[in-house]
Amino acid sequence: MIRRARGMRDILPEDEIERKRIISIIERNYQEYGFDPVSHPAVERLDVLEAKSGEGIKTEIFRFDDGELGLRFDLTVSLARMYSENSGLPLPFKRYAIEKVWRREEPQYGRYREFTQADADIVGSSSMRCEAELIACACNTLADLGIKEYKVYVNNRKLLNATLRHIGLDDARIDTAIRCIDKLDKKGKAEVVKELAQNGITNGGEIVDAFTKGIEYYEQIEECKEGVDELKKLFSYLEMYGIRNYEFDPSIARGLGYYTGPIFEIKSADKQLGTIAAGGRYDGLIGIYAGQQVPAVGISFGVDRMANLFKKENSSRTYTDIVLVNVKEENIKACINYAKKMREKGVAVRIDLMERSMKKQMEYASAIGAAYVGIIGDNEEKSGTITLKNLGTGEQKNVNLEDAVKIIKGETRAKSV
Amino acid sequence: MIRRARGMRDILPEDEIERKRIISIIERNYQEYGFDPVSHPAVERLDVLEAKSGEGIKTEIFRFDDGELGLRFDLTVSLARMYSENSGLPLPFKRYAIEKVWRREEPQYGRYREFTQADADIVGSSSMRCEAELIACACNTLADLGIKEYKVYVNNRKLLNATLRHIGLDDARIDTAIRCIDKLDKKGKAEVVKELAQNGITNGGEIVDAFTKGIEYYEQIEECKEGVDELKKLFSYLEMYGIRNYEFDPSIARGLGYYTGPIFEIKSADKQLGTIAAGGRYDGLIGIYAGQQVPAVGISFGVDRMANLFKKENSSRTYTDIVLVNVKEENIKACINYAKKMREKGVAVRIDLMERSMKKQMEYASAIGAAYVGIIGDNEEKSGTITLKNLGTGEQKNVNLEDAVKIIKGETRAKSV
Repeated sequence: MIRRARGMRDILPEDEIERKRIISIIERNYQEYGFDPVSHPAVERLDVLEAKSGEGIKTEIFRFDDGELGLRFDLTVSLARMYSENSGLPLPFKRYAIEKVWRREEPQYGRYREFTQADADIVGSSSMRCEAELIACACNTLADLGIKEYKVYVNNRKLLNATLRHIGLDDARIDTAIRCIDKLDKKGKAEVVKELAQNGITNGGEIVDAFTKGIEYYEQIEECKEGVDELKKLFSYLEMYGIRNYEFDPSIARGLGYYTGPIFEIKSADKQLGTIAAGGRYDGLIGIYAGQQVPAVGISFGVDRMANLFKKENSSRTYTDIVLVNVKEENIKACINYAKKMREKGVAVRIDLMERSMKKQMEYASAIGAAYVGIIGDNEEKSGTITLKNLGTGEQKNVNLEDAVKIIKGETRAKSV
Repeated sequence: MIRRARGMRDILPEDEIERKRIISIIERNYQEYGFDPVSHPAVERLDVLEAKSGEGIKTEIFRFDDGELGLRFDLTVSLARMYSENSGLPLPFKRYAIEKVWRREEPQYGRYREFTQADADIVGSSSMRCEAELIACACNTLADLGIKEYKVYVNNRKLLNATLRHIGLDDARIDTAIRCIDKLDKKGKAEVVKELAQNGITNGGEIVDAFTKGIEYYEQIEECKEGVDELKKLFSYLEMYGIRNYEFDPSIARGLGYYTGPIFEIKSADKQLGTIAAGGRYDGLIGIYAGQQVPAVGISFGVDRMANLFKKENSSRTYTDIVLVNVKEENIKACINYAKKMREKGVAVRIDLMERSMKKQMEYASAIGAAYVGIIGDNEEKSGTITLKNLGTGEQKNVNLEDAVKIIKGETRAKSV
């Protein structure tokens, strides 16, 4: 049998409706926080994709057969490349993008090679107000999503770099060490020390210890001053936004190669949900494409895992509010007419498109998960009414069209647009 | 300079806001007509993409370096493949998908290698009610988009095939002839006759004549009976939907290889806008993947050209309603506080993220195209008000927060979500 490509999936209505609900909440928050939408091309030149991506991601790029093009693995690289081609934009440039990205990873249960990122980025400002604005926006989004138990973990790449240099690592080994430290949370201390040793870094114990200290430790290291000052500034802005549930965590590292300043992860108390949003400052990335340094900072929500986990609670299998059932073949004209009027009022309606019996039509309404059926026979046609049946409660009554619309709109779920 | 890939583009806020407005109108109509959303993977196996695509499109597939995968060139093939892997779905299965597709065509002005299709399809029914439902949905969408002057042109692949067979062409040459006839509208009779001759079909004059006849001509050809009956049935359903501006056009052919029954194109009277939506019945396509015949019919809106042409009229450069301006550095805390309250009311707000002077902040508000600025200095802080300035009219007044929100929400444009 011919089938879908490995690691790819179709998102069927049950999942897609929930995914769209989550996306629309994120999108509304991005808009309220003053971000405007941009859509980037899925296909980018390989030299763009590989310029500053870090070694890990290069092996995961979907490459085309011309040897010149690939699919984007995130939206930040496209933003940086885009900005370099549109340098006249008023700064700060605040853009959001909610689009799919592709990585040729080994597929796992619930993890696909295509997934959706919902990003907001601020280009052109070095102020810590940007980081605070992004974190505040994310916290508000979480509240709207009904996620109450979470914490914002904040670190600064400048601290990571300065501390590792202070301990005595050279630049080449700093990148390796950061990749190892990034796993501290998941793998634990012993495993990370072992991994550091495997990479030729023998003072792993000292390194790991450094990244479990409080901010006071870093304040005493001269090379860390800039990074500490930035974080203090950021924390004071977070307080202005009324955000209290943040925490300095020196072990937060973020995998991607392009971060240069503050980095942050928002983690749910629910371990299954894990990291909901994450981001950081990448003041060096745009410069690679634009030829001049342009500061920038961004945040990204992973939509898919949320959609998977929320599905059970909010599951709505269809947007369709009502299935209109024609009792006899001749009643189809009335059904079409009623459907037209209800749709004009914003009700989502299906009619019988298979010329089936009334019984089959009723079964179909249940099968798709519609909230109501509206039965239309000769009596209803004559009196201009419909017999409205609530499929949840089984309750049934004869009402005119106007009342039917009121009942349906009052009780059924909201559309996505 | 590193740049975007050939034929690709970023869609910046000015264009993306209009594109999203159009998409949300199409999407709302699809929902009201009882379609549910599905998202298909961008990457498909080449054997899926090439199974029934027609020769023309094969050369336009973006192929990956593994020789097994490619980017989808439309959404219909993915739907057919998807259905074959999800055969338990209640029928008819009504799905919409609004996603990008990719074709490696020669880029032209305003035509890109990546574009958005907005499709609705009905799987599982042979009834002409499906065609009528799709056309009615499209007509309603056009009304909501403000497009008043258009016509629905309808034909049937069965007529094309039967007529060409009647004239004496064999099956192999029928496909070639259909591809030529498809260009009758654009290239004219003489050119098509020439092209037919170049393909070894010498009775081009007779063929072209046949495809300028009225439906009465086809009624007299025995082999055309099934196709004519379907169209008559379809037209009677269109009348039930109150649709009058349709027309039989025997020269409508639709390029893609998979159509088997009625086909339709909705064309604007505005030649620049051209074909807005088009579709048809493809009863054979799903069978290729599923192993059993499953009837299906769909329609597709091309979003990009509409967005390009509508932009000037509706252009809104930003979703941002208001830029809050802090008179002095110390007023930023009040700005953050005001922004929080306004955002809670659904107002899209920007604050100063670059620690700039009041003058620069005002210039920024104009540059991004915000409707209002809200000035916050010591006086405003003390009295809990803002000085609200309408950047369109220049009008300025001191109001409390609640009134500011009312003024802004009453006058500024709606968000996309």
